[in-house]
Amino acid sequence: MAKEVTKRSENYSQWYNDLALKADLAEQSAVRGCMVIKPYGYAIWESMHETLDKMFKQTGHQNAYFPLFIPKSFFSREAEHVAGFAKECAVVTHHRLMNDPDGKGVIVDPDAKLEEELIVRPTSETIIWSTYKNWITSWRDLPILCNQWANVVRWEMRTRLFLRTAEFLWQEGHTAHATAEEAQQEAMTMVQVYAKFAREYMALPVIVGHKSPNERFAGALDTLTIEAMMQDGKALQAGTSHFLGQNFAKSFDVQFTNKEGKQEYVWATSWGVSTRLMGALIMAHGDDNGLVLPPKLAPIQVVMVPIYRSDEELNAVLEKMNEIKTQLEALGHSVKIDTRDTLRPGFKFAEWELKGVPVRLAMGARDLAAGTVEVARRDELTKETMPLEGIAQHIDTLLGDIQQNIYNKALRFRDSNIEKCDDWEEFKTKIQTGKFLLCHWDGTVETEQAIKDATKATIRCIPIDSCVCEEEGKCIYSGKPSKQRVVFAISY
Amino acid sequence: MAKEVTKRSENYSQWYNDLALKADLAEQSAVRGCMVIKPYGYAIWESMHETLDKMFKQTGHQNAYFPLFIPKSFFSREAEHVAGFAKECAVVTHHRLMNDPDGKGVIVDPDAKLEEELIVRPTSETIIWSTYKNWITSWRDLPILCNQWANVVRWEMRTRLFLRTAEFLWQEGHTAHATAEEAQQEAMTMVQVYAKFAREYMALPVIVGHKSPNERFAGALDTLTIEAMMQDGKALQAGTSHFLGQNFAKSFDVQFTNKEGKQEYVWATSWGVSTRLMGALIMAHGDDNGLVLPPKLAPIQVVMVPIYRSDEELNAVLEKMNEIKTQLEALGHSVKIDTRDTLRPGFKFAEWELKGVPVRLAMGARDLAAGTVEVARRDELTKETMPLEGIAQHIDTLLGDIQQNIYNKALRFRDSNIEKCDDWEEFKTKIQTGKFLLCHWDGTVETEQAIKDATKATIRCIPIDSCVCEEEGKCIYSGKPSKQRVVFAISY
Repeated sequence: MAKEVTKRSENYSQWYNDLALKADLAEQSAVRGCMVIKPYGYAIWESMHETLDKMFKQTGHQNAYFPLFIPKSFFSREAEHVAGFAKECAVVTHHRLMNDPDGKGVIVDPDAKLEEELIVRPTSETIIWSTYKNWITSWRDLPILCNQWANVVRWEMRTRLFLRTAEFLWQEGHTAHATAEEAQQEAMTMVQVYAKFAREYMALPVIVGHKSPNERFAGALDTLTIEAMMQDGKALQAGTSHFLGQNFAKSFDVQFTNKEGKQEYVWATSWGVSTRLMGALIMAHGDDNGLVLPPKLAPIQVVMVPIYRSDEELNAVLEKMNEIKTQLEALGHSVKIDTRDTLRPGFKFAEWELKGVPVRLAMGARDLAAGTVEVARRDELTKETMPLEGIAQHIDTLLGDIQQNIYNKALRFRDSNIEKCDDWEEFKTKIQTGKFLLCHWDGTVETEQAIKDATKATIRCIPIDSCVCEEEGKCIYSGKPSKQRVVFAISY
Repeated sequence: MAKEVTKRSENYSQWYNDLALKADLAEQSAVRGCMVIKPYGYAIWESMHETLDKMFKQTGHQNAYFPLFIPKSFFSREAEHVAGFAKECAVVTHHRLMNDPDGKGVIVDPDAKLEEELIVRPTSETIIWSTYKNWITSWRDLPILCNQWANVVRWEMRTRLFLRTAEFLWQEGHTAHATAEEAQQEAMTMVQVYAKFAREYMALPVIVGHKSPNERFAGALDTLTIEAMMQDGKALQAGTSHFLGQNFAKSFDVQFTNKEGKQEYVWATSWGVSTRLMGALIMAHGDDNGLVLPPKLAPIQVVMVPIYRSDEELNAVLEKMNEIKTQLEALGHSVKIDTRDTLRPGFKFAEWELKGVPVRLAMGARDLAAGTVEVARRDELTKETMPLEGIAQHIDTLLGDIQQNIYNKALRFRDSNIEKCDDWEEFKTKIQTGKFLLCHWDGTVETEQAIKDATKATIRCIPIDSCVCEEEGKCIYSGKPSKQRVVFAISY
């Protein structure tokens, strides 16, 4: 095989990087910390984008677009927000280049200094709430249910493809409501949209819950999250939805006249997922041969590789393949016939395995004569010779089975690596072996911090949909009383 | 009516601005020169995006994503490119904010100065060709047919919504080829894709042609353009496609081994359209009542306004409307029933007219009893009472007629304002009255510049698909021989 992939057991981190690079998903660019998303990787992101966008619209949201730049002063408006966010970001200070008087290249024109610096958005709450101020007068203007697909920049010192990059792509929903209850309901609706997307499309079992105060978004009263387990047992926060209370409305003085004719501050939410989901997809399902893509997000669901020794054989096989392709496309599937004549079938098999294509068909003259085709499934790495009769329908069913099987595998893996723990010494050992531990916690910031300092583990969430956690007990660290177990893990 | 629109005859420029603002398409943001694209405006851009994206994919292109930032030194690499582009742009010099030691707000951390400044991309040729260098080794790696949907920034002193904004949204295609011929063919294919999109979706008659050397993209050997006439007779460049030769390949040392085993520089194209198309759409079709949207791009194609005096009447009308809505949606149309109970029908009529919705249905108890409905078409501002029987099919046909009628109107307008001109004195007068003038030109940069200095008119293009222009003659300015007429106009 041309492109060797590091084994997970040898070096998990290198394995991840190999998959991202060698499956042609992304690469580092000439700009520190910024990635190039290559066509194959971008096609997966497009599937995610398209699916989520439909789900947002079905729940009543509209897209809009707000400026890339945010005046520096906006960051000082919301005190908690600035503390949590404003530090590591790209600052625009000038608006012109000029020819270097020494004749070589260009320099920044010192006369083109901006009066107020602009920050490349790390998130858009501030610029959006400064805009909403003009949109909202009365209760009739509410709710506002906007989403934005955009790029954002957070200057990161250590970057990893998809998981942590200076620039990344995301969507950020920003909604405005007349009551706290409605805003809280919106935040809940959207975290459930994310959970549904993760489970049904990404084949990713996720735990839905509240963040502890320590881990909340800067400026939020409540942060809801979906947390997924990667194959090294670490947690990955895959999407968050925030109830922002009236914090941003107060900072930007956004009031409305309620039905009783009184002035009130508007209630807010924001929610987002990003290209980080690409990292989750790689790490949740990939194996030592490469990516394993859930059919619902795979840019190519079925690849066909012709086996032949003569042009005549090739043409006969291609004719049949095109027939199957047409049938599969009519069923809504994306199909590629790999006709490259400079590569051997074995090389092609390995390449499509590396790229995680769910189903591979191989067919030669002998198959054609026998009326059969070899069907390989990526998730189980199994091959089967099938009759050509009814093959399209069979593959249609198979793709559904694969989608379900990938989810089930991930679920089994997670469930076998999640356990209750009530002993602090045991906790300290077990948490390092790649487990999610369900533990009692006394609800204080201090205890969470102490546990983090001792083990690097954090509270990933306080689950809302898992009844196993609702029981009385004693905090694993302080021994104080607790009403519910929470999920501890080491996270990305 | 709540929102009055300035008449075109009174103040065309104010009329344009009124439409953009009052039809809820966009507004200025808190950041100088950057606009907010509001949900209704963004929905139109989404239609454009979706349609073009399909056309790009049908012509073999894939999407990818490249960094927002470009190292300053990259701009010095391609000499012509830097001269044409690098001047007015947003420069990132620092990567961190810090709390103001005086305790108020945040300041830029002087210790976080970047070693090399980063430029927010004004266009991505340089960063993309620095990336392609790693992707291309052999002729087998070619062609590369990538497109990117992205935001770009060009610092503009005087801005207008959609037409000229510091930040705008666009797509930029960047392709790499083994031969000059193939690249030239690609540039031609893409300008024809743009022309098709403009004509069939935007209902915009456009002239396809080459730019004169003066008006070429910085770094291009040839620029192809589509030029449209606005209602004030000015030209708007609606899309461009560039044959870049080997300029960027040479600047970034991108070579490939050809089939003969020799090293060659790669041939390039780039092509793009932007949110400027929104401005074209407004100005080409709008009238004194507001927007007129071609059905194929209208976010709402049919709006229904119930007329009622009691809840009972309302319910009966809504039942029928929902029935029609279901039928229309089954035919692939987007429909909105305006059930707002705080506004009168007349206000709603005016609002949907302002927003350019192609077809409006109004129905009251009397219509219901008579089995009729009032159908108003936005393009002609006519109303007709139609039988309810077969109404969905009728509207389906009507939407097609409206699309065609809007195009025909724009075409008639353009054709009645385009004429041959062979006299310099006549030219100077006529060009100021909002005409496209077809004139002979001696082919020199000097003549074009002299004409521009005297009249502000430029060569919009040297048409390629209009045989009326191919004839011998004498340059309108210099009297020197010419082989073809070109299109002169004053432009946006």
